[in-house]
Amino acid sequence: MTTTPDIPALSRAANEARGLALDAIAGCKSGHLGLPLGAAEIGAALFGHALKVAPKHPKWPNRDRFVLSAGHGSMFVYAWLHLAGFGLSLDDLKAFRSRGSLTPGHPEFGDTPGIEATTGPLGQGVGNIVGMAISEKMAASRFNTEEHKIFDHVVVGLCGDGCLQEGISYEAAAVAGRLGLDNLILFYDSNAITLDAPTEKTQNESTVDRFQAANWDVWELEDGHNVLEVLDSFERAREHRNGRPKLIICKTLIGNGVPEVAGTTKAHGESGAKFSAEAHARLGLPADETFFVSSETREYFAGLCERREAEYAAWLETFEAWKKANPERAALLEKGLAGDHGNAEDLLELIPAFGANKNATRVSGEAALNALAANDALILSGCADLFSSSKTYIKDGGDFDVGNPSGRNIWFGVREHAMGAILNGIAYDGIFKPVGSTFLTFEDYMRPAVRVAALARLPLFYVFTHDSVAVGEDGPTHQPSELVSSLRCIPRLDVIRPGDAEETAAAYAYAAANKSGPVALCLTRQNVESQEKIPAETRRAGTLRGGYVAVKEQGALERIILASGSELGIAVAAAEKLGAGTRVVSMPSMEIFDRQPEDYRESVLPTACRRRVAIEAGITPFWRKYVGLEGKVVGTDDFGFSAPGNVVLETFGISVENLVKVASEL
Amino acid sequence: MTTTPDIPALSRAANEARGLALDAIAGCKSGHLGLPLGAAEIGAALFGHALKVAPKHPKWPNRDRFVLSAGHGSMFVYAWLHLAGFGLSLDDLKAFRSRGSLTPGHPEFGDTPGIEATTGPLGQGVGNIVGMAISEKMAASRFNTEEHKIFDHVVVGLCGDGCLQEGISYEAAAVAGRLGLDNLILFYDSNAITLDAPTEKTQNESTVDRFQAANWDVWELEDGHNVLEVLDSFERAREHRNGRPKLIICKTLIGNGVPEVAGTTKAHGESGAKFSAEAHARLGLPADETFFVSSETREYFAGLCERREAEYAAWLETFEAWKKANPERAALLEKGLAGDHGNAEDLLELIPAFGANKNATRVSGEAALNALAANDALILSGCADLFSSSKTYIKDGGDFDVGNPSGRNIWFGVREHAMGAILNGIAYDGIFKPVGSTFLTFEDYMRPAVRVAALARLPLFYVFTHDSVAVGEDGPTHQPSELVSSLRCIPRLDVIRPGDAEETAAAYAYAAANKSGPVALCLTRQNVESQEKIPAETRRAGTLRGGYVAVKEQGALERIILASGSELGIAVAAAEKLGAGTRVVSMPSMEIFDRQPEDYRESVLPTACRRRVAIEAGITPFWRKYVGLEGKVVGTDDFGFSAPGNVVLETFGISVENLVKVASEL
Repeated sequence: MTTTPDIPALSRAANEARGLALDAIAGCKSGHLGLPLGAAEIGAALFGHALKVAPKHPKWPNRDRFVLSAGHGSMFVYAWLHLAGFGLSLDDLKAFRSRGSLTPGHPEFGDTPGIEATTGPLGQGVGNIVGMAISEKMAASRFNTEEHKIFDHVVVGLCGDGCLQEGISYEAAAVAGRLGLDNLILFYDSNAITLDAPTEKTQNESTVDRFQAANWDVWELEDGHNVLEVLDSFERAREHRNGRPKLIICKTLIGNGVPEVAGTTKAHGESGAKFSAEAHARLGLPADETFFVSSETREYFAGLCERREAEYAAWLETFEAWKKANPERAALLEKGLAGDHGNAEDLLELIPAFGANKNATRVSGEAALNALAANDALILSGCADLFSSSKTYIKDGGDFDVGNPSGRNIWFGVREHAMGAILNGIAYDGIFKPVGSTFLTFEDYMRPAVRVAALARLPLFYVFTHDSVAVGEDGPTHQPSELVSSLRCIPRLDVIRPGDAEETAAAYAYAAANKSGPVALCLTRQNVESQEKIPAETRRAGTLRGGYVAVKEQGALERIILASGSELGIAVAAAEKLGAGTRVVSMPSMEIFDRQPEDYRESVLPTACRRRVAIEAGITPFWRKYVGLEGKVVGTDDFGFSAPGNVVLETFGISVENLVKVASEL
Repeated sequence: MTTTPDIPALSRAANEARGLALDAIAGCKSGHLGLPLGAAEIGAALFGHALKVAPKHPKWPNRDRFVLSAGHGSMFVYAWLHLAGFGLSLDDLKAFRSRGSLTPGHPEFGDTPGIEATTGPLGQGVGNIVGMAISEKMAASRFNTEEHKIFDHVVVGLCGDGCLQEGISYEAAAVAGRLGLDNLILFYDSNAITLDAPTEKTQNESTVDRFQAANWDVWELEDGHNVLEVLDSFERAREHRNGRPKLIICKTLIGNGVPEVAGTTKAHGESGAKFSAEAHARLGLPADETFFVSSETREYFAGLCERREAEYAAWLETFEAWKKANPERAALLEKGLAGDHGNAEDLLELIPAFGANKNATRVSGEAALNALAANDALILSGCADLFSSSKTYIKDGGDFDVGNPSGRNIWFGVREHAMGAILNGIAYDGIFKPVGSTFLTFEDYMRPAVRVAALARLPLFYVFTHDSVAVGEDGPTHQPSELVSSLRCIPRLDVIRPGDAEETAAAYAYAAANKSGPVALCLTRQNVESQEKIPAETRRAGTLRGGYVAVKEQGALERIILASGSELGIAVAAAEKLGAGTRVVSMPSMEIFDRQPEDYRESVLPTACRRRVAIEAGITPFWRKYVGLEGKVVGTDDFGFSAPGNVVLETFGISVENLVKVASEL
């Protein structure tokens, strides 16, 4: 906003925001007071003046993004969203941390207007804003024209000491510095207190030097409670487009407003709330009223909201003109904003049938991804230093970089965790469809970000290659014997482990189309034969249902073999040897299959047939839900070992011969 | 070594080590040439001269530790261990990456003499050496006397660009800097190439500034192939005990020796091996002989080995004198080196029965840990900024710090991943028994380190509190609905989720005694009632067997309820309502139970009884191995939500009422 800031109004609002946090936390006897009280002037500067947002249009594509990385301080953002007019009512604040409220314990992306990301696990937000900043750079470069600038917002984060202790924040900072994201402004609420202790107990690093080393501009405010200084530094950061992200360090007093606990670890959680009455008096709030907002503050924000909506209206005018002048770009943007990337069946048409082949599924995946990406300019592909192995490079897509913000391939370096959170940031931003890849074993490195993606139902997907002990010589550190199952543990995540090229095509189409949450594709390093005896159409359509009858028994059904991924070929070969009564069920995705109607599931796995054996080159317990107590599972519940892949598989009995033996013994 | 280095001998050895790596990788057509060729002079300086090691006594407690964090360059360390006389034969090198060899694809802790850590997942080794350095500081402070210094070694790591891109390396560096570990020397093989690309593609950070910001001393060698300079910088680092860890940056040429690929991404993997013949000629190695070691090199190392063993013998003399003078300390050290912390049954005697109580299992755990720690001075407890919540602080144990290297509590800050790798380092070092704690949800942040601990069978344990959706108001980011099961996925890791105070006592005793791998304790945030109707002895002994009959049916067995953790109380209450034929099986640890003899398992879960229902406040699939297809599981396969814990539990039907209903319907 170019108007002169009204400092007395902002200071008053800061104290009232403190009161809202105190009252909400006292009300439910839980929550975290430290940040809402300590960072109140940062909130006043941003939500009370500087942020370019339209509270009545919280999804305005060109709004400044604000992410509270220190998500435990959720009452900070709820209080400011309320004051700024985002449609979060006082009743919503009073329902803090209660079932079904818009104000859960930690901010959750979804229903709450103005909440841009699910945060709480520390450091995630620092990664998210890097993704949002990438998205802004890319949107500006793809959609702006000489005549019309429709994207020019900044991305703002607020983090605490804890966020910056987490390794993910360093990774994200390194990526942001390398990619020159000068549209990113990170506020650091530096109160020198974490949950357990003053930070001197756990750190003696120079934060200034650390970020400067990573190519950031750093400003340090000795008094983070000085609204004017916060505002000045923010405006300076916003204007200073020099190819460097910005860190604004605000020295603050944690729990400021409750001197009984302020500046100590006691201020972090809810224990200050018991001094609520005294705090009210000190903050100039009425003694007999909770959730107090003065009429002056209401008036101030009403005026601000009007100016903000006017700014939005002006943008809308530009936008409409742009739309008329650029119908193709406008259609693409609309598609992105709607999250509409087609349905899986249609997308599958874009990927020609492979025919007989012996390709690793990662190699088939390369063809699938490139067919989809050629058709959908919004698909972006990032990788943690393994493009050449994961085969996820978008050919002719260019590389995202300072000089090429339209580039569709993002080089994350060996930084899986930041990659995960950055992909989330791109997905939150809601224009592009991100894909991220690494070796399956190293999903562990990014797991906290995958979990948040699932929780927030972000429509992105992962390509995890080298998906079993068949990886071979690299040994157990690189052989993910437990990883497919450990992904299956994550709610709302669809895991697909396709068995050949056609199943891989379907898996990619499903992942690209899916809107309801993340999808993880688990692909082989080693070659697998395409199952040409099964019609390509059956393999594709069956994969879209999660599981299907790949080989139907001849005559009466005697036994069922279930398999996923590279073991599908073993199952089909074993069935041939076992004879007429054997059915093979290909089960690339348990999650998708389990969501099919009961009659379909029954048609694939008839209750009456209990002679069942499953095979997967990994740990066995998840298969028990299909084979029960009487059935068998061929796999390994131990780690693998370093030897050629076929030797490892043979040793664990993951072979036609052993499968035949086990199935015969049922 | 104080002798003058023989530079020509070391340079010759460097080239022969290059030849060994080339030949081994060419032999099995896989592996990573880049580092063994690029860091050969670092190897020569360390293994050929400077390291204080006794190759014939690879477990010498006062040896310098060397960890190859960039584990993919395993032929580097194998070649040098061979040359230095560590009992790794040429045949072992020839068996590189084959089944059962001492030379697996990535170094594995265990059978290979001289391998100090399992590495490969990048950055882990950087955390491990911090743990080893903590262990050395602590050992020196606990065991050295004025008269006899038996610990004064350094810990040396070698990492590459990839290790330093990973967030874990920043976390570990911050911890090392804060704790003033000046006995730690990290070599950085800076070749500016990662698997996929030159590092300019992915980083523009100043490594010098970054480490200096974290309180490290940094030296930069423009020519990392100059043995003398490497040696000089190492000796300087070793002597410079100023409270700062040391980073020695060596600019090297990746794949040096194979100009066809050197300095490019092609040098990283095995592709340079096809130029083996040309390389032989250039390196001065015979054209017609692979795995060549000159007699001059053999002679040089024979002499070196003799001097090294003499140094060991001198130490042994001091050690024997120390032992005589300090029998108690000697006994403690011996116990630590043997990894002997008692057996679970005996340890359990140290924890008095709790009697009736309503404590959270994390609170019972505090008493258990302190009882064990009072009895065993080698137990150390570290926490990621949650001592006050995890209740894992060793009272009167002091805090490990620069001024107090005997302190038994380690403050890691909010750095779970580094904590995991540092715990591993302490465990590898083989004197102390480390415990690490955080919230269960944040196990995800340290999962790659937990995986390595399991793979390497490290005898340490984790205390993961706030173990279910019952966490309540903090919401789904902090409610680990899938985490108990996701831990169960990891092979060789024992997971224990005790149901009350007595089960918690047994879980701690088991964890403290266990030698065969890591143990994860999952403990409640909320209060749980102790199951006083079940004898304390039954609860304790049953937990040590993983699962047991908690409540025996009266008369004929009609149904079985299985439960873990906080749901044990619900199961017991439901059984009372269900009437005489109901058995309750408490199942705190599936892994331990599954290892019991078949007759015991059959006695707990009789095959004939298929009416089975399991209850756990988390995801359900793992229970299928006990309840089969006909049984039921009460739990949730979704994330939780923010609301009081009892509301969350009720909503998911994790209640006596619903359990009775489900069990009745069986």
